[in-house]
Amino acid sequence: MSAIVNRRDVDFMLYEMFGLEALLAEPRFAGWDRATIAAVFDTAQTIAETKFLPCAALVDAHEPHFVDGKVVMEPAVGEALRAFAEAGLLAAGFDEAIGGMQLPMLATMMVNGMFQAANVSLANYSFLTIANAHLIEAFGSPEQKTCFLGPLLEGRWFGTMCLSEPQAGSSLSDIRTRAEPLPDGNYRISGSKMWISGGDHELTENIVHLVLAKIPGGPAGVKGISLFIVPRYRVNDDGSIGAWNNIALAGLNHKMGQRGTVNCLLNFGEQGDCIGHLVGEPHKGLGYMFHMMNEARVGVGHGAASLGLAGYLHSLDYARNRPQGRLPHDKDPASPQVAIIEHADVRRMLMAQKAAVEGATALLAYCALLLDRQQTVTDAAELARIGLLLDILTPVAKSWPSEHCLEANKQAIQILGGYGYTRDYPVERIYRDNRLNHIHEGTYAIHGIDLLGRKVSMQGGAALAVLLAEIGSEIEAGLTDPDLACEASALRMALNALDAATRAVIGCGDRNRALANATLYLDAFGEVMIGWLWLWQARVAKARLAEVAGDAFYAGKIAAFRYFFRYRLPGVHAQFALIGALDDTCLAMEVAQFTGF
Amino acid sequence: MSAIVNRRDVDFMLYEMFGLEALLAEPRFAGWDRATIAAVFDTAQTIAETKFLPCAALVDAHEPHFVDGKVVMEPAVGEALRAFAEAGLLAAGFDEAIGGMQLPMLATMMVNGMFQAANVSLANYSFLTIANAHLIEAFGSPEQKTCFLGPLLEGRWFGTMCLSEPQAGSSLSDIRTRAEPLPDGNYRISGSKMWISGGDHELTENIVHLVLAKIPGGPAGVKGISLFIVPRYRVNDDGSIGAWNNIALAGLNHKMGQRGTVNCLLNFGEQGDCIGHLVGEPHKGLGYMFHMMNEARVGVGHGAASLGLAGYLHSLDYARNRPQGRLPHDKDPASPQVAIIEHADVRRMLMAQKAAVEGATALLAYCALLLDRQQTVTDAAELARIGLLLDILTPVAKSWPSEHCLEANKQAIQILGGYGYTRDYPVERIYRDNRLNHIHEGTYAIHGIDLLGRKVSMQGGAALAVLLAEIGSEIEAGLTDPDLACEASALRMALNALDAATRAVIGCGDRNRALANATLYLDAFGEVMIGWLWLWQARVAKARLAEVAGDAFYAGKIAAFRYFFRYRLPGVHAQFALIGALDDTCLAMEVAQFTGF
Repeated sequence: MSAIVNRRDVDFMLYEMFGLEALLAEPRFAGWDRATIAAVFDTAQTIAETKFLPCAALVDAHEPHFVDGKVVMEPAVGEALRAFAEAGLLAAGFDEAIGGMQLPMLATMMVNGMFQAANVSLANYSFLTIANAHLIEAFGSPEQKTCFLGPLLEGRWFGTMCLSEPQAGSSLSDIRTRAEPLPDGNYRISGSKMWISGGDHELTENIVHLVLAKIPGGPAGVKGISLFIVPRYRVNDDGSIGAWNNIALAGLNHKMGQRGTVNCLLNFGEQGDCIGHLVGEPHKGLGYMFHMMNEARVGVGHGAASLGLAGYLHSLDYARNRPQGRLPHDKDPASPQVAIIEHADVRRMLMAQKAAVEGATALLAYCALLLDRQQTVTDAAELARIGLLLDILTPVAKSWPSEHCLEANKQAIQILGGYGYTRDYPVERIYRDNRLNHIHEGTYAIHGIDLLGRKVSMQGGAALAVLLAEIGSEIEAGLTDPDLACEASALRMALNALDAATRAVIGCGDRNRALANATLYLDAFGEVMIGWLWLWQARVAKARLAEVAGDAFYAGKIAAFRYFFRYRLPGVHAQFALIGALDDTCLAMEVAQFTGF
Repeated sequence: MSAIVNRRDVDFMLYEMFGLEALLAEPRFAGWDRATIAAVFDTAQTIAETKFLPCAALVDAHEPHFVDGKVVMEPAVGEALRAFAEAGLLAAGFDEAIGGMQLPMLATMMVNGMFQAANVSLANYSFLTIANAHLIEAFGSPEQKTCFLGPLLEGRWFGTMCLSEPQAGSSLSDIRTRAEPLPDGNYRISGSKMWISGGDHELTENIVHLVLAKIPGGPAGVKGISLFIVPRYRVNDDGSIGAWNNIALAGLNHKMGQRGTVNCLLNFGEQGDCIGHLVGEPHKGLGYMFHMMNEARVGVGHGAASLGLAGYLHSLDYARNRPQGRLPHDKDPASPQVAIIEHADVRRMLMAQKAAVEGATALLAYCALLLDRQQTVTDAAELARIGLLLDILTPVAKSWPSEHCLEANKQAIQILGGYGYTRDYPVERIYRDNRLNHIHEGTYAIHGIDLLGRKVSMQGGAALAVLLAEIGSEIEAGLTDPDLACEASALRMALNALDAATRAVIGCGDRNRALANATLYLDAFGEVMIGWLWLWQARVAKARLAEVAGDAFYAGKIAAFRYFFRYRLPGVHAQFALIGALDDTCLAMEVAQFTGF
């Protein structure tokens, strides 16, 4: 059993749930078929298992450190990332025209998931480089594309995203980094950027920072933010590496997890000119950044699900092989101990992990399919529908896995008991790694406000209406099948509760009060989405079971579907009732009341 | 604001909730009054804040390691523990007759909580030494007490508990450590013991291991387990240290958290005779151990709550002082940023922490009061009632804080954002430290089986009946007050749901199925208990508010009470419905169905 992927489930998602074959029939993906895609997965799995996985504990224990002015890290990091780049995987999702493989996002995301499951600390370097290159591809000038995309996609240079500042984490409105125009059309960048993953290292000959900064005289707040390409070393006209660009490492952050990813505070232009190249038009930087956010956030959600999967597979393997104790009815101490998977609570913890991980993966695969269809659909109405679905689902796709696949990791530790709490087993590291996902790429709370404060009401509620219609179709299908009707009906009730709570919130004139429970709304909303995707998975599995009776994989899907509807979904009603009541118990709390002084 | 204790809440628990003054009127505690108890708290708080807290990050970063055959650790560990011992705190809860302070458990537990909040890695050494000495005090021979208790209570020797073995973690029935009788009445111990906290170090001149082992020829399983005192160095008749007792350090465990506590695998008698002294009678070792378990498990629960408190206080302080962002209605980027405590979701996360931490603390203080009353009550019927309450509440008191105060720590990290994920702030360490509490002293699942499989049905349901009567009185009181009646009524409904689910489970003939959701039962049961204790806290706070109108502390108690009943308690109904339905979705899962192969 692989420690990082269940290829059977990958195939289920790609071909049985989300119709990758139909996508491959589109001209854009004409170069691909099921066999060639399987070959990409085979290659990637081998690299992930032989280069990324073996050094995961090592890079956790020996994090990047500072020696003689340089960031030093384990040689295994560079070796793994070179193997990744040499297999062309940095370019997997990019257009053939710029040297990419033009692989569908649906497949690309799942390929990348194997690396996240194996060693997320290393996968971050490629993840950021890909996101960086996507932005330059979408909004860069022809010269910028020529200069930067090749080296990025070949892995000769890596990329970063520089948004946060020490005094302005989530509040980009308050960033202070300045970009002063120079006569040659470039800008002089000055300021500090915090939490920069991959911000300084010797893995590649250059690092391409994408930096949000303000051009003096521009509008206040987020409307005055521009986007700049700021390379660590300046790039000569012939593409060769030039002088150091005055980007100084001001400090390394020492994190709870994801320790193999160097993360730092950078000072731009402190000791001399730091040259930045404006991307697109001035003051539109945040818009460019958000254009890529859907994809990046789906990727973060998939990273959380992949870590959930890694913990699930490890604890499943352990549970199958660790003898301990006896079943409740067996009082004979001379009888042999059973494998712990025989214990009811171990099964429950495995089931909880399966339901969370495979439910999350289905949601993320659905989002990836939507991203792919944005590339192939031409009908304007359908494109609008896809855009709305992505807009409303993205905060959920980022957040639900970050919460519930972290919980899954907690259960993986519990299954291993004392061993799970030691660094001799990977589950505690995975749990530490996964804890980051609610913090970066927008915190949990910010996604709650995004969903409840904007997405459900945007365009007169158009996104929510489209989504409810989509789920409604699945419910209708489920209601016609006696085996699924009970759950389909439960999903209808949950959807009604969601709808009622949403209306109550939208109708509230006090915006602060309306959004006071937005995080809980996001979580309950996510439960309903995962319920929908489990109903969908069960319908597909049941149809396949009619052909291959007794198949354990499909039977397992249906069992996990039942689990989700029995153990999880009923909980949303209490949540939606609370949200719909516009409860302000927390909001009304006075500061002194927390402790009494 | 102290980082480790809210003395206002301590006083509330001691004097306003649990009537410590009435306890102090008992002859056993006649040496104490409110002023002298406050003096103990003052001394302890100073030591915790000046000796334990400052080195918490240090001992986490530099865990014990092996140099030239010895375990080496930071000098700060020994300094802190010496200060603790020199203040007499190891002996705080012990009888004056053996050199103790005879402090009530209610106060002792809260005193110890400050050390757990400050640096649980160090507090473990004293915690284990105290538990060890309690066992010897209760079951040791006069000679054993004379020999061991003095050095333990003075902190010249530390104690351990040696239960688990590599092949038998939770399943003590399967331990293999042997104890062969010697002609002089002692025993020769041989075997390996795993997860031994404080198992090897140079902090004290001797280490007193309490070891579970089997005397050959005894009954199989747990009925053949005996308890032995096995010192690291043999003790001469005059009490001086003798020869090494052949207890070899076989390996150090490297944990996710609680890294300052050395934890190891020990081999007994591998290279020569290892002498053990039988405690009490042969084959009764597990009974002796369980006699002390209630107290130890309440202590573990309080450790979890104390870590919850440490995270709460830190994130509260941060939230009050960190400026970031603006309220939803403020669209002016030129307006000043607000402290993040102004944000609704930050308040929610603080409230969730307060409700969990103070709710758990109230439950634990109630259990401590019951332990104290076991020492002072003489009426047999009342003693039986107290015993039943402790029996049924102990698994909850150990487990609910371990789950929900860990969640509280997760929220503390979230409030600090990226900073919370770094080792520059204590909250990520506290979260790692707290993750252990569901694993040691009986896992979550084991306490679930203990509660649902034994405690609720023991003596014909006598323990549950006594508990329901206790809670019923509080509900009756609440129903008479319009301000509390709504919640009192909700608690009544929750209690009815608990009762119905319990009956359904007890009536099920299939024991494996009946206990399949025991962990969920334990959690939901815990929610009801915490609801009861919040109703109780609110009643007391409301009565005090009538005297000191507008007091923020009491108002905060009432707000947290409302929070718990609005945000948490409604969730139990879905849980009890599931449990009462005897759902076997997880239990029925076949192994191959988890992944399909």
